[in-house]
Amino acid sequence: MSSVDARVHAVDETSTTRQAALDYVDRLENRDWPGLAAMLTDDVVYEMPQTRERLRGRDAFVRFNIEYPGDWHLRIRQLAADGRVAALWLDFRVGADQQDACVWLDVSEHGLISRVVDHWPEPYEPPPGREHLVERW
Amino acid sequence: MSSVDARVHAVDETSTTRQAALDYVDRLENRDWPGLAAMLTDDVVYEMPQTRERLRGRDAFVRFNIEYPGDWHLRIRQLAADGRVAALWLDFRVGADQQDACVWLDVSEHGLISRVVDHWPEPYEPPPGREHLVERW
Repeated sequence: MSSVDARVHAVDETSTTRQAALDYVDRLENRDWPGLAAMLTDDVVYEMPQTRERLRGRDAFVRFNIEYPGDWHLRIRQLAADGRVAALWLDFRVGADQQDACVWLDVSEHGLISRVVDHWPEPYEPPPGREHLVERW
Repeated sequence: MSSVDARVHAVDETSTTRQAALDYVDRLENRDWPGLAAMLTDDVVYEMPQTRERLRGRDAFVRFNIEYPGDWHLRIRQLAADGRVAALWLDFRVGADQQDACVWLDVSEHGLISRVVDHWPEPYEPPPGREHLVERW
């Protein structure tokens, strides 16, 4: 394989991963549970490092999302797809409440999502000592 | 430009962004302040959405890092570079304390970092109601 071919191959893998990330958010937002299930590996792993929670398997992951409370809505703020890894910065809203989420996806060689890691950074008050450098919004 | 040329161009932009992300973490970890300053745009913007803090300009951003308390250390857990955007999942440690950080970088057309957004997802106890689906670690 020539150097150019190798680079184009990598771009194609990234394109598949990008589409998987876009579809993932779209199917969650639309409560398309069969569509979501169809894009996961059988043994998909879902992790939330902040609570040290882990869930295994397609059925459990879809069930988790079906049961997630509230009329939540998702919008992509940033997306970075790179080979078989994607990072998403999501705007997550339930009514008037807004929170950011940082999501990492691993995609299999067949284009299915094999791992999802959710980070939920919550608001907090800044520590003292840096007021001379920052503004607040 | 042919379709293949366009895709290779995008790969090269991504390579520049990937290197900028790697260098960014390396220069922070090594307290290489001149090296860090050299890879930022004059008007770099740094944001922490959780505290709604924003800081503007290369000098203020380097100063913020020089003054950041503690003997902190950074290690990359995941990196996704995509055109002129990169996402980093960092392992941040001060002594025995560990925390994850999710960092988004924007890179200028000249390969300089023009925006840094830090998310600091902190540990919390999981809400009740999903014990039947998850394991803890």
